[in-house]
Amino acid sequence: MKHVNEYIEQIDGELWLKEMDRGNLAIDYKIKEILYEATSPFQHVMVVDSYDFGNMLVLDGAVQTTDMDGFIYNEMIAHIPLTHHPSPKRVLIIGGGDCGVVQEVSKYPHVEHIDMVEIDELVVEACQTYMPKTAGSSFDSRVNFIFTDGVEYARQKADGYDVIIVDSSDPVGPAVQLFELDFYRNLHRALNEDGIMVCQSQSPIFQQDIMRQSYERISSLFQQTALYTAVVPSYPGGLWSYTLGSKINLSSGAHARARFDKQTRYVNEGIIDSCFTLPQFVADALFAPRE
Amino acid sequence: MKHVNEYIEQIDGELWLKEMDRGNLAIDYKIKEILYEATSPFQHVMVVDSYDFGNMLVLDGAVQTTDMDGFIYNEMIAHIPLTHHPSPKRVLIIGGGDCGVVQEVSKYPHVEHIDMVEIDELVVEACQTYMPKTAGSSFDSRVNFIFTDGVEYARQKADGYDVIIVDSSDPVGPAVQLFELDFYRNLHRALNEDGIMVCQSQSPIFQQDIMRQSYERISSLFQQTALYTAVVPSYPGGLWSYTLGSKINLSSGAHARARFDKQTRYVNEGIIDSCFTLPQFVADALFAPRE
Repeated sequence: MKHVNEYIEQIDGELWLKEMDRGNLAIDYKIKEILYEATSPFQHVMVVDSYDFGNMLVLDGAVQTTDMDGFIYNEMIAHIPLTHHPSPKRVLIIGGGDCGVVQEVSKYPHVEHIDMVEIDELVVEACQTYMPKTAGSSFDSRVNFIFTDGVEYARQKADGYDVIIVDSSDPVGPAVQLFELDFYRNLHRALNEDGIMVCQSQSPIFQQDIMRQSYERISSLFQQTALYTAVVPSYPGGLWSYTLGSKINLSSGAHARARFDKQTRYVNEGIIDSCFTLPQFVADALFAPRE
Repeated sequence: MKHVNEYIEQIDGELWLKEMDRGNLAIDYKIKEILYEATSPFQHVMVVDSYDFGNMLVLDGAVQTTDMDGFIYNEMIAHIPLTHHPSPKRVLIIGGGDCGVVQEVSKYPHVEHIDMVEIDELVVEACQTYMPKTAGSSFDSRVNFIFTDGVEYARQKADGYDVIIVDSSDPVGPAVQLFELDFYRNLHRALNEDGIMVCQSQSPIFQQDIMRQSYERISSLFQQTALYTAVVPSYPGGLWSYTLGSKINLSSGAHARARFDKQTRYVNEGIIDSCFTLPQFVADALFAPRE
């Protein structure tokens, strides 16, 4: 066994990426080759070609998105808020450097403007070059890239959006602020009066505290809050949660859902409704009285 | 690093179980201790206490069920067919040595008789002693254990059942026969005229061929066939499929579903309906024309 870099080991001639989760669980991915590797001012950025998941974006050793299953996460964080808003025209994406979410949002012709605020330009460049299946090969003229800190942008500049999508990494280091009440308050202010926000709210299995905290913080600000789930095979535990906060009644999107016509691989009309049906243990984790 | 047994390694003083999936993906579980280990005439049987998943049953190195998430698989393979049958009285379980399924079936007072056919008595003994959270601590008088080959039992003795649940391991070695058309034909014969069968039909992500094959074989015999999914974090890919074959129209169970009153941690009234809503890629894998 020898270390190829901090995250990849060579074992019996095979390359393996070991992704450690909280010290108790690891997933080992067999790798064909490292396609890209660099260190940005923010993190170690790597794209690898894996046997089971195709090309994978790996930041500081943690798998962020893969060609095999990245579409699930990206479709679910984009289409659920967009189909629930009566008429989204201005959309803000915070994070989302792999560019998968912006490609999903671009599928809506009535969206007029998409601001994408990503702190690390190197991630966007790496994905555009080495993960075209996820990032797409081009962007249309509605997309405006802003390479800056999403927390600062939300505090100082964000305004007049119909939908805001927070595609953050895990709440470790700088991303912690993307889970704070202050940040959600700034998003609420930046949304129009019928606006909707959504964020990823971690694993309903391994991070129930964060999921519940996100739900409670968003509930304290928005008229209606709803949690939904999807399966993301390359995330620990497989099940992932998203929390949606809306300034108006969510049922107003019923018309849009009934004629969902986008080319997608996970989302369909049935999923748009059924994703809000929570397994009993998720509902219990969210709503049970605190001990 | 040293090998504690064929499946457990000691690394820097920590015990790790490495579960390899098809040579390209591995999940490493950090282990507190090995609670039980023996070799039966059929397989290596081990129960370990893990950090993230509690006690886990491991057969030939493959994690079969865990105290943390075993309830999901067991509830989903038991309650979905039982709530769709108008009045299940005689139930057959093939496999299911961890005894989780039989505990779920026992929650139905109108079920009069439960035959459980498991090839490996050692698995049942190990789980009763070392996995009481999954296996339960006792069985009521309706449960009849039969320690023999499920394929032979289905061929020669099975008859007069309302619901048959096939809780098999992966289609490798002897379990291959539990995925054959001949086996399903014997189950069809062993079911009463309003009978329902269900089997686990593998991962919709990594074993699409087997999932589709199960669906097509069961469709060729039963009036109605339906595939449903659930998230099982300790199975590779996280998403798992089940295929249900029914001799009668499945909507007949609507009354039972509307008053679901069992103590469960995954299944609830919403899940009983929404589990049949398939992500688009699963529907495509199941129904797309063959190339």
